[in-house]
Amino acid sequence: MIVDNLAKNFGTIFNPEAVAVIGASSTFGKWGQLILSNILAGNFEGKVFPVNPKEKSICGLPAYKRLTDIPEPVDLAFITTPAGTIPDILEECGEKGVKGVVLITSGFSETDEEGKRFEKHITSMCREKGLALIGPNTMGIICPYVKLFATGSHTRPREGSVAFVSQSGNLGLQLVHWAEEQGIGVSLFVGSGNEAMFSCTDYIEYLEHDPRTGIIVLYMENMGGGKHFLDVVRKVHRKKPVILLKGGRTEAGRTAAVSHTGSMGGNQAVFRAACRQAGLLDVRFPTELLDLSAGFSSLPLARGNRVGIVTLGGGWGVVTADECNLRGLVIPDIPDSIVETIGKYLPQFWSKGNPVDLVGTQDLEVPIVAVEELLKWDGIDAVISLGIVGRLELVRSLIVSTREVDASISSEFLDQMSALSREYEKGYIAKIVELMEIYEKPVIGVSLANTNEGTVRPVAGKKYSGVFYLTPENAVNVLARMVDYHRFVS
Amino acid sequence: MIVDNLAKNFGTIFNPEAVAVIGASSTFGKWGQLILSNILAGNFEGKVFPVNPKEKSICGLPAYKRLTDIPEPVDLAFITTPAGTIPDILEECGEKGVKGVVLITSGFSETDEEGKRFEKHITSMCREKGLALIGPNTMGIICPYVKLFATGSHTRPREGSVAFVSQSGNLGLQLVHWAEEQGIGVSLFVGSGNEAMFSCTDYIEYLEHDPRTGIIVLYMENMGGGKHFLDVVRKVHRKKPVILLKGGRTEAGRTAAVSHTGSMGGNQAVFRAACRQAGLLDVRFPTELLDLSAGFSSLPLARGNRVGIVTLGGGWGVVTADECNLRGLVIPDIPDSIVETIGKYLPQFWSKGNPVDLVGTQDLEVPIVAVEELLKWDGIDAVISLGIVGRLELVRSLIVSTREVDASISSEFLDQMSALSREYEKGYIAKIVELMEIYEKPVIGVSLANTNEGTVRPVAGKKYSGVFYLTPENAVNVLARMVDYHRFVS
Repeated sequence: MIVDNLAKNFGTIFNPEAVAVIGASSTFGKWGQLILSNILAGNFEGKVFPVNPKEKSICGLPAYKRLTDIPEPVDLAFITTPAGTIPDILEECGEKGVKGVVLITSGFSETDEEGKRFEKHITSMCREKGLALIGPNTMGIICPYVKLFATGSHTRPREGSVAFVSQSGNLGLQLVHWAEEQGIGVSLFVGSGNEAMFSCTDYIEYLEHDPRTGIIVLYMENMGGGKHFLDVVRKVHRKKPVILLKGGRTEAGRTAAVSHTGSMGGNQAVFRAACRQAGLLDVRFPTELLDLSAGFSSLPLARGNRVGIVTLGGGWGVVTADECNLRGLVIPDIPDSIVETIGKYLPQFWSKGNPVDLVGTQDLEVPIVAVEELLKWDGIDAVISLGIVGRLELVRSLIVSTREVDASISSEFLDQMSALSREYEKGYIAKIVELMEIYEKPVIGVSLANTNEGTVRPVAGKKYSGVFYLTPENAVNVLARMVDYHRFVS
Repeated sequence: MIVDNLAKNFGTIFNPEAVAVIGASSTFGKWGQLILSNILAGNFEGKVFPVNPKEKSICGLPAYKRLTDIPEPVDLAFITTPAGTIPDILEECGEKGVKGVVLITSGFSETDEEGKRFEKHITSMCREKGLALIGPNTMGIICPYVKLFATGSHTRPREGSVAFVSQSGNLGLQLVHWAEEQGIGVSLFVGSGNEAMFSCTDYIEYLEHDPRTGIIVLYMENMGGGKHFLDVVRKVHRKKPVILLKGGRTEAGRTAAVSHTGSMGGNQAVFRAACRQAGLLDVRFPTELLDLSAGFSSLPLARGNRVGIVTLGGGWGVVTADECNLRGLVIPDIPDSIVETIGKYLPQFWSKGNPVDLVGTQDLEVPIVAVEELLKWDGIDAVISLGIVGRLELVRSLIVSTREVDASISSEFLDQMSALSREYEKGYIAKIVELMEIYEKPVIGVSLANTNEGTVRPVAGKKYSGVFYLTPENAVNVLARMVDYHRFVS
């Protein structure tokens, strides 16, 4: 029996109740060790069965000689053993009734003609046996909702709404690692590998109906059936933003891509024009994928291009206004009534305009007043707030110095100052998130400082999260792309 | 007596042997506390005299009622007391024979017409008394070579060759703070404030002859005498790269700048064309100032635009090649002899070209072999190396997981693995730095991981340092600007 579309198995294999690791190992650094230790240390919610004919026990779990020796059902098998062993293992997978295999093993179509033929062979075997095949030559998958972290890189992002599909395992996993560091919630990561059975388009079609996924992030070199991809994306993108980094956009990149994924490229100019027509959020740099993921998954969409800027320091307001201007965003003059309200908190000589320069005020109320006044006004679609969250870092280093040099200032007082700053920052974020819910406009933060707290700062029980980029250009870029997307869907 | 050019005092005031802080305070968060505690905690090499008529002792030092009560000579006075007190204090500074004052106090030309008049008045007072005046409305100065960290923000970069001059204290200090985090060595920071006496151009002229300064980084909104500035920069830039972020380049930014520094802008298009003609490295984003600082201060200059790419992961090679292509850099095919030499270390099916894709090899020798083979070849002007330094982070998280889940792997073995990775990374950096000295070509690293070790990784006793950016676009940007600069000076 040949099953035409094994994508029907995705629901099970991305939420498995039991997985086997074929080639599981205790040899530090081997793929079978990387994957197994990651799955176990990540506290996978289901059962884990190591398979290795030479071992009795691995990581304290009984090891099975063969997959078919496992006394319980298995949904998904990770395979790390050499290419030559794969046909026999697939036989066992079929016998065992496994729903899918993640084939980490390389040495297939990415190598030579023989590898290509062999890949075809094992792919038909999978079809015959009803096995959904991810890979081969994949770096694995991550399913945060069941705590399945099954990749060579031990990165474990929190659960959330961003799905990553990458034709480069290395690049894709680095993105997910950054997502983890930045606090971006992930619904799924798939390294699509050689795409013997499923292309990125197949995963996108699955994600379209995955209720956990709100944003789809792609790294692709090879577009395969470009037309089908674009048809699917055009449809999905209306519901869920699709953000794409295309590797091999240039002659030099294309040459590199041919030897990497065997992508033949095709006419790039035509393709990119088609992407733009499909509304796709087509980015230039890998880090943009993260910035857009953070913003689109955590903030209400901006419904227009009019920006209010609130800044603790004048210079930052100036460069942010410059960048807004260059990206087609507008900094409108604000009405006298807003100037008056904010002015109550500031010295006489404040800027009295947009950007609202808080001239380094230590007053803790005015940043919130300024943000709310701007959000309230129907002449503004979004606010960029600079330097309010992040100031904590400055206070911290001041406290360290003070402790060191001034014995007359009590340690308790300094502890209080530190706690107060921390509380203020938390309170400010909570307030911003509340205001976003009320006004349904984004407030994009710029911390200016490496806060070690991540870009996304969730607030318990809230729909939106605080988002704080390191620098203004990142915030402006996200806002500009939000405006593009809003235009596309409305 | 009116002294025409008090810039002659810069040598003394940027290397003072004794400083006074007028308005010194133990009240946490006051300017007089920020500055004094920073100077003391930073271990300034000279003497420090707090001045405050109401205190007997501050931070354990005797406090003086007036500057003139100090029994020893004072080179430089920091003043934080209100504007109204300044004339009397300047009288005392004159009497004391101080060489310069850093006037933190605000409330001058940045406020209103009266403020402008008052600023003129105190500036002539300084001229009469032979006092070089920095500010007013400045956030201070940093002179790492004498360990004088005299700003409100407690950031203390290591000594090095990059000088920062900023018309925005807030933005400038944030840059210096990032420089500290990234390990970029600094020769001087000056917040030029309202520039009552000295413009950025005056500081640039000083820096031209400062042997410690190799690179000059500017944030400017107000160009004052644009022609004089350009004449000076044109001359200096041939010797020392001048990197500029111009705030207020756009209509929106200009409006913001007028209320910030009172900059009237002038014709921006004309100005920018003139900058380009003067060869100035004119950047768009604040973070570029740091990236260029790191690269220009640590690497030999690229003498052409031909790039070799060495990468642990194929996808990263592809996006780097794309970005090189977009920025006018070329990725030449490499000769068979190089392919052969590198191929000895890699599996049969490796890319056999440039980018050199090391296909995730765990062999520790081949990255160095590949980099050296490329540097040796006269068809290459620079190498970008991706993911070799930074892998340590992956190894670290693997070790954490392994410890947690596999009791059969000994803790000593894992400690060894960790030490080995650390040693390898150190050794790789040392080797790269050595190769840069031999071949006088830059090797620009991309770590891909937040290493917490900074961008610049110095090697003891060496002229060059390792440089590792987080992402390829930063590395490519620096290389592209190096090529521009090399063309300009050659």
